[in-house]
Amino acid sequence: MKINSASKYLNSLRELSPVIYYKGKRIKDVTVHPATAPHARAAAMTYSLANSKEFRGLATATSHLTGKTISRFTHVHQNVEDLIKKVKLLRVLGQKTGTCFQRCVGFDGINAVYSVAYEIDQKFGTSYFERFKQWLIRIQNENLMVVGAMTDPKGDRSKGPADQPDPDQYVHIVARRDGGIVIRGAKLHMTGSVNSHEILVMPTTAMDERSKDYAVVCAVPIDAPGVTLIFGRQASDDRRDQRERIDVGKPSFGAVGGEAVIVFEDVFIPEHHVFMDGETEFTSPLVYRFAAHHRANYGACKTGLMDVLTGAVSYLTQAQGTDKGSHIRDKITEMIHLSETLYSSSIACSAEGWPTPSGAFMVDTMLANVCKHNVTRFHFEVARLALDMAGGFIATLPSQYDLESENVGHWVRKYFSGVKGIPTAHRIKIGRLIEAMTGGTALVESMHGAGSPQAQRIMIFREGELDKKISLAKRLIGIPTSNRRKTKQNST
Amino acid sequence: MKINSASKYLNSLRELSPVIYYKGKRIKDVTVHPATAPHARAAAMTYSLANSKEFRGLATATSHLTGKTISRFTHVHQNVEDLIKKVKLLRVLGQKTGTCFQRCVGFDGINAVYSVAYEIDQKFGTSYFERFKQWLIRIQNENLMVVGAMTDPKGDRSKGPADQPDPDQYVHIVARRDGGIVIRGAKLHMTGSVNSHEILVMPTTAMDERSKDYAVVCAVPIDAPGVTLIFGRQASDDRRDQRERIDVGKPSFGAVGGEAVIVFEDVFIPEHHVFMDGETEFTSPLVYRFAAHHRANYGACKTGLMDVLTGAVSYLTQAQGTDKGSHIRDKITEMIHLSETLYSSSIACSAEGWPTPSGAFMVDTMLANVCKHNVTRFHFEVARLALDMAGGFIATLPSQYDLESENVGHWVRKYFSGVKGIPTAHRIKIGRLIEAMTGGTALVESMHGAGSPQAQRIMIFREGELDKKISLAKRLIGIPTSNRRKTKQNST
Amino acid sequence: MKINSASKYLNSLRELSPVIYYKGKRIKDVTVHPATAPHARAAAMTYSLANSKEFRGLATATSHLTGKTISRFTHVHQNVEDLIKKVKLLRVLGQKTGTCFQRCVGFDGINAVYSVAYEIDQKFGTSYFERFKQWLIRIQNENLMVVGAMTDPKGDRSKGPADQPDPDQYVHIVARRDGGIVIRGAKLHMTGSVNSHEILVMPTTAMDERSKDYAVVCAVPIDAPGVTLIFGRQASDDRRDQRERIDVGKPSFGAVGGEAVIVFEDVFIPEHHVFMDGETEFTSPLVYRFAAHHRANYGACKTGLMDVLTGAVSYLTQAQGTDKGSHIRDKITEMIHLSETLYSSSIACSAEGWPTPSGAFMVDTMLANVCKHNVTRFHFEVARLALDMAGGFIATLPSQYDLESENVGHWVRKYFSGVKGIPTAHRIKIGRLIEAMTGGTALVESMHGAGSPQAQRIMIFREGELDKKISLAKRLIGIPTSNRRKTKQNST
Amino acid sequence: MKINSASKYLNSLRELSPVIYYKGKRIKDVTVHPATAPHARAAAMTYSLANSKEFRGLATATSHLTGKTISRFTHVHQNVEDLIKKVKLLRVLGQKTGTCFQRCVGFDGINAVYSVAYEIDQKFGTSYFERFKQWLIRIQNENLMVVGAMTDPKGDRSKGPADQPDPDQYVHIVARRDGGIVIRGAKLHMTGSVNSHEILVMPTTAMDERSKDYAVVCAVPIDAPGVTLIFGRQASDDRRDQRERIDVGKPSFGAVGGEAVIVFEDVFIPEHHVFMDGETEFTSPLVYRFAAHHRANYGACKTGLMDVLTGAVSYLTQAQGTDKGSHIRDKITEMIHLSETLYSSSIACSAEGWPTPSGAFMVDTMLANVCKHNVTRFHFEVARLALDMAGGFIATLPSQYDLESENVGHWVRKYFSGVKGIPTAHRIKIGRLIEAMTGGTALVESMHGAGSPQAQRIMIFREGELDKKISLAKRLIGIPTSNRRKTKQNST
Repeated sequence: MKINSASKYLNSLRELSPVIYYKGKRIKDVTVHPATAPHARAAAMTYSLANSKEFRGLATATSHLTGKTISRFTHVHQNVEDLIKKVKLLRVLGQKTGTCFQRCVGFDGINAVYSVAYEIDQKFGTSYFERFKQWLIRIQNENLMVVGAMTDPKGDRSKGPADQPDPDQYVHIVARRDGGIVIRGAKLHMTGSVNSHEILVMPTTAMDERSKDYAVVCAVPIDAPGVTLIFGRQASDDRRDQRERIDVGKPSFGAVGGEAVIVFEDVFIPEHHVFMDGETEFTSPLVYRFAAHHRANYGACKTGLMDVLTGAVSYLTQAQGTDKGSHIRDKITEMIHLSETLYSSSIACSAEGWPTPSGAFMVDTMLANVCKHNVTRFHFEVARLALDMAGGFIATLPSQYDLESENVGHWVRKYFSGVKGIPTAHRIKIGRLIEAMTGGTALVESMHGAGSPQAQRIMIFREGELDKKISLAKRLIGIPTSNRRKTKQNST
Repeated sequence: MKINSASKYLNSLRELSPVIYYKGKRIKDVTVHPATAPHARAAAMTYSLANSKEFRGLATATSHLTGKTISRFTHVHQNVEDLIKKVKLLRVLGQKTGTCFQRCVGFDGINAVYSVAYEIDQKFGTSYFERFKQWLIRIQNENLMVVGAMTDPKGDRSKGPADQPDPDQYVHIVARRDGGIVIRGAKLHMTGSVNSHEILVMPTTAMDERSKDYAVVCAVPIDAPGVTLIFGRQASDDRRDQRERIDVGKPSFGAVGGEAVIVFEDVFIPEHHVFMDGETEFTSPLVYRFAAHHRANYGACKTGLMDVLTGAVSYLTQAQGTDKGSHIRDKITEMIHLSETLYSSSIACSAEGWPTPSGAFMVDTMLANVCKHNVTRFHFEVARLALDMAGGFIATLPSQYDLESENVGHWVRKYFSGVKGIPTAHRIKIGRLIEAMTGGTALVESMHGAGSPQAQRIMIFREGELDKKISLAKRLIGIPTSNRRKTKQNST
Repeated sequence: MKINSASKYLNSLRELSPVIYYKGKRIKDVTVHPATAPHARAAAMTYSLANSKEFRGLATATSHLTGKTISRFTHVHQNVEDLIKKVKLLRVLGQKTGTCFQRCVGFDGINAVYSVAYEIDQKFGTSYFERFKQWLIRIQNENLMVVGAMTDPKGDRSKGPADQPDPDQYVHIVARRDGGIVIRGAKLHMTGSVNSHEILVMPTTAMDERSKDYAVVCAVPIDAPGVTLIFGRQASDDRRDQRERIDVGKPSFGAVGGEAVIVFEDVFIPEHHVFMDGETEFTSPLVYRFAAHHRANYGACKTGLMDVLTGAVSYLTQAQGTDKGSHIRDKITEMIHLSETLYSSSIACSAEGWPTPSGAFMVDTMLANVCKHNVTRFHFEVARLALDMAGGFIATLPSQYDLESENVGHWVRKYFSGVKGIPTAHRIKIGRLIEAMTGGTALVESMHGAGSPQAQRIMIFREGELDKKISLAKRLIGIPTSNRRKTKQNST
Repeated sequence: MKINSASKYLNSLRELSPVIYYKGKRIKDVTVHPATAPHARAAAMTYSLANSKEFRGLATATSHLTGKTISRFTHVHQNVEDLIKKVKLLRVLGQKTGTCFQRCVGFDGINAVYSVAYEIDQKFGTSYFERFKQWLIRIQNENLMVVGAMTDPKGDRSKGPADQPDPDQYVHIVARRDGGIVIRGAKLHMTGSVNSHEILVMPTTAMDERSKDYAVVCAVPIDAPGVTLIFGRQASDDRRDQRERIDVGKPSFGAVGGEAVIVFEDVFIPEHHVFMDGETEFTSPLVYRFAAHHRANYGACKTGLMDVLTGAVSYLTQAQGTDKGSHIRDKITEMIHLSETLYSSSIACSAEGWPTPSGAFMVDTMLANVCKHNVTRFHFEVARLALDMAGGFIATLPSQYDLESENVGHWVRKYFSGVKGIPTAHRIKIGRLIEAMTGGTALVESMHGAGSPQAQRIMIFREGELDKKISLAKRLIGIPTSNRRKTKQNST
């Protein structure tokens, strides 16, 4: 691994020159700009964990392509154990950053494209798989961070790509030149993109024949000509601009992953970086595999976050003298129960993993969707419980400026104190941490990251094998199961 | 009513000189400072509604003390109709401001103190009731805004007032001087306090004999010597500082009520503004009556807010082309269902209102507690549903600066567009409104305003008349009901 | 009132000769047959309560037609007070019977037909209203029990009445004879029908022009020629057949209302008992008014049942020595909270009642639907909580035969004992009561009685005034509200 | 395996002579008595599945003691794969019987006692482990069904075993004779006991030194002298007595497992069948291991049941013509989602299995408790959804006697018909199946089987490692983690 530490990772970002806008201005150095630095630091944790004695076994893997030790985030899952190690790695990273560390998006993109490229080649005699492996070996050797870029703007959602008034609402090929293609469009909500090295572009939905130009998978350097990033707002993001370390909640890390719009304005992609070009029938498996892998993560990383939140609230109740209350213990229990329910599905969909024809292992689709779907509910309930126990001061706390003011600081310290022995500043800091982890952006991310709830419900229904279940019921009451609705002349 | 319009109200605030700190600095004029002006504007709506032909009947009342037309917010409920009009008034105000308009805290304080002062006098021959009526007549005639000040800091919550290491964790009388008392302490989470005229101080919990000095009710001008306010932070509050009108979500109004700490540093209160002084046995009814009135409100004002939020999400789904989806209609239905469930309890506890000995009408305590308790659950679920339908862009939208940027503005407008005919800016504005109404501070307020969930559960259990319910069950199975646990020698 | 006591009511039933089948055999006397007697006894409570000093004010009313004192169950609501008294009456009856007392179905039918008949006459110059009043005066004077008959079998639910392969799946007019009509079809789930005097037939859904013959409202004596009733099964109904008084749970009363199929096999209805005949446009208001009245009830009677169940569980936890547990108190609190939430909506939709053109008062439709919709959720949760606290013996208790057995009775008494002082038999009886109130039929009734959940959701969406809510949101963000989707040439 | 088929199993039961009472009378042959035969048939499925080509791999295992092929239900888990196979086996059995097949109780008892006996011997030099292995080899070779007997009557639950007024409320040793012990007491809720061969008695809770005589583990033949069984009632059990095949819902199998009280009236246990005698400190691990194994099952077998129920409801909606409704699909999706959430935890706690010192594998305790805890919630919600879709006829269907009646049968068939092509009798049968699977006993079993909800919450809190979570939170905000509440002189 060329980039083998957090600091080398941050340095490597400085060597790139992506075009990034935030609040109307260009960001020069994402590793120091207050809006992006916290996200770069969270991603850097994926690098530093590989050097940790305790977690190296989770954070690294042996490349099946080169035999070298690589970051697990660049690995293609070779077995169930790999899938389970990924889950445990994500939980640890969630615990250590209390936020999104972003790198699993590219990780999942790599695994989805790998297995699908293989199958396209099997069917059409193309050479995407070989191209992809070459690209991947470079990613592994250099240990690059890849942003998996799937979600298109979609414009009018009642219409598909081919029927949009504006054809650019989905990324598509607008021209073909010698040795490559030219793409246009945008990808929204691109987690970690501003501090990534490469973009792996994938289609966002199953395409039909009319949308061949939209069925494109390719890799693009983050600073390729024509690529522009516009960084999005987060709840209370301005507190960070002003270096109010306490009031941001998490002094080192971001609220979520740091999302940006990536605009592709006629970007040229050389042929060897194109991994799908018009094979529309493979868009559906690609999307579903990426989605399944990605949904599986949420029971891991979010459980890590909930571990932090549960700890934060427990500590706060100690600070406030309420920790012995039976209803407090009951609510803490509920937070743990919900978190571990999520974790169950991440582990389970991994334990039920299966090999694709390429040899890459997939998680169980049903359980991965179930996992993410519960996150869209339980994170809100866990937040609700946390805010219940934390008390109203989460919403009314004066600022750090007041805490440190000569005029009113003594009153803030006096009137926000709790039990003897725990400094008021600790209580305030933990309150701000809870505020940051339960409000706004953090919850929206749990709702829509890796697909909105309805996307999971569609998959759960589809994978539910209703016909089989109907047969089970019929057998129990002794009615024939072969022909479901055979018309009978004389019904009883 | 001396102050009989929104503008006169705002002018009246400029004539006061309260000591208010925010982010370490004094606020000179709350009606223009970006942190406080939105809250003043929301409160001003309670004044302007009294001039509205449509809502005058709700917004005003006839004083039973003077026979004059007064603001309903200064009225003592004389019958069930008054209670129900209050509910309707609060819903309308919630619909028109989309936020907390603050003035019901003082309103409820007035009603609670009125009836309890009467009863203290009946028992002890004191003259609190007369004093209070005189004070109230002035409030009614001038149409002042009163902040009801109940919540003390509480310090170590495992200890009562008398056992705190720091005696000031609850407001208390520290000295008695000619013609009055001197109080010290603080009140937290004081909604609307920075733009109120007077403070009505009340004890926060039932007191025992050891805490006589803590059993104090009194009125204090907001700019009385020794009074200092420290204004609290809200989610994304800095966006407002910088005049980013779109990004704040609600351009005119605040996220919640605008809460502040009120510090009382040895404040002198003349005798005629003292309405309880040591009658500890009446602290309990005072707290419960105030709490019941205040909890009843939440099914009204929050339903108003949910009306706005439901409308916002409906419009957004139209803008995105998803409004015809069956799951969208189902979720909208659920939002309405939950909102109207809350409204039910507000109406019901009013319809079941009853007269106190003073003649002032009280809401039904059980149903008022049930009302608020559901708010602490349903507001989160309503927010969750709204965020589900709104989509991930709530968390990743670029700023207004980017929308208006020469460099990237065209891309923001292009790639955040929806259906033809609805401008992207409308979609973005409605998205920001949803963001402001579903995140952080707004939900915490629904959780803890008017008392935390556990406070309601204690009341619900206490009012549940379990013995009566046990008798009902016993009668149905034919076992004797008179002696609950009479020891029997030969049990069957 | 001719029938002015429970015993006269039971006697009056013996004078009728309806054709009733149960388990393949005819029931001769519904007042003694073990399957039907408990239901007759529950309905009888509506008669005896009118003689109770405590509840007479609720159980009777003054007829606006005759000025006489009548049973409230035959009354047309004249004001909000009437609506609220109805709610209180139903809760008391639920508390006293622990089950469905059935008579509100006819009550609601009377109120719905009254106001709609008036409006038909206004529009078409018919004389249904006068006919109906004459019929109603007889019902009031004799104090008859009327079954409101609405739900048709519906056959293939994907088709309307006119498209059914079998035209009889909805009750319809099959012939017209001198002085009357002939109807055929059936009504399902007819609560209390076997112990009623008359049937008030109403259409089950809004009809269109093609279904004129299905738009029929009429009154039919329960023992009219051509009417046959088939009584349905209930959970554990055979225990009752065998007189196992303990094992049935409620020794005197039924599990639910006692439902039957009513078959109309070419039944002649004289003209003066026909209150609608082909006026299809009035089927919709009729159904909605009946449904709204009926849905409003569920927050009253079911709250009465939940009062009993809460009492039963509380007593059982005393018997088992678990009543002091904090989680027990918390669950009891939750049962009360959910019950009272239901009650809120019953009270609220009554308090918000409004006069129809006929003068009869209607409940608020939105809140009535909200009321019933919550019942379809909360009754299950209340049952779940009750079963949680009751413990596993609810599912494994030996029979009363074993309790009284010489061989094993002493062991049953020994090993099902609880705390000292409460006889084992009491614990067992209360356990059986809980079993009866939480299982099977009882919960299905709460789900589907007065309309299935989806029926309420449709109404809630329809009554939700989305356009108004959208305007509220638009106003807050300053975008025009007049034309919702006016196409703009240059959208931003 | 001596007993290697369902018929041999049923024959083997006939060779035993247990003393069983039901409704006051002795049951002579459990394989034919209508109350017990359905349960024997369900248990028999565990035998016949071992002969199924498709499921043999799940239903059998290789004994680590003898190397022989044995029923998995007599196996000691040797690795994670064994734990996962168990989960899959239970789901299949749930799908095939739609009910409890009972045999996992003994299975879990075997695994718990095996590992604990080993550890007792390690500590005290006793020889329980060798005794147990000998006993187990016989069980494996003969393929006997063992009932795991844990739950004591408990009497006054506010008191422990040693403080009960009646010492027999927990099974205990009352005498010691040559070569053995004599026990007295009872075990409640003994699933499958009436059709088992042997009883494995275990303590029900952690015991202290005062309760040495209660710390007893031993094996007892089901027909040992002094053992009496009293079979409990189930919802609608009398329908079965009368051979109403349709009305019972599941013609072949029972509602739940078939629970009985087992009374031990001075039963002699020879020494070689005693596996714990007074080692109180090992009662706690024994109970927790048994509980964890048993709780893990519920996400498997109940998911199997929910598969059946989901299929039943799907079929019914087809029969009724409602299957295309969007709300129907949504509710079906929810049923599947909840079921698979449960399944996740069963798989996950197995995938996270770990070896005890004896070599026997344990499931992850946290996730096993989470699994069962969700069952206590989701089974009710799944039932609620099923009943919602099924419609009101579940509660009002006439009996099979009426269906077959000459007088009214044609009407039942006519008016309960659905879409063309599906016989009414099928619709009725599937309705009865749904009734049986959603009411009363079935849900209580999901609530309390393997421990009541509160038992799981206690374990979840205990296993939650709050201190570790608090450290995670502290680290994120940069406050020291070493000494949790070190008193600081000058707190900030």
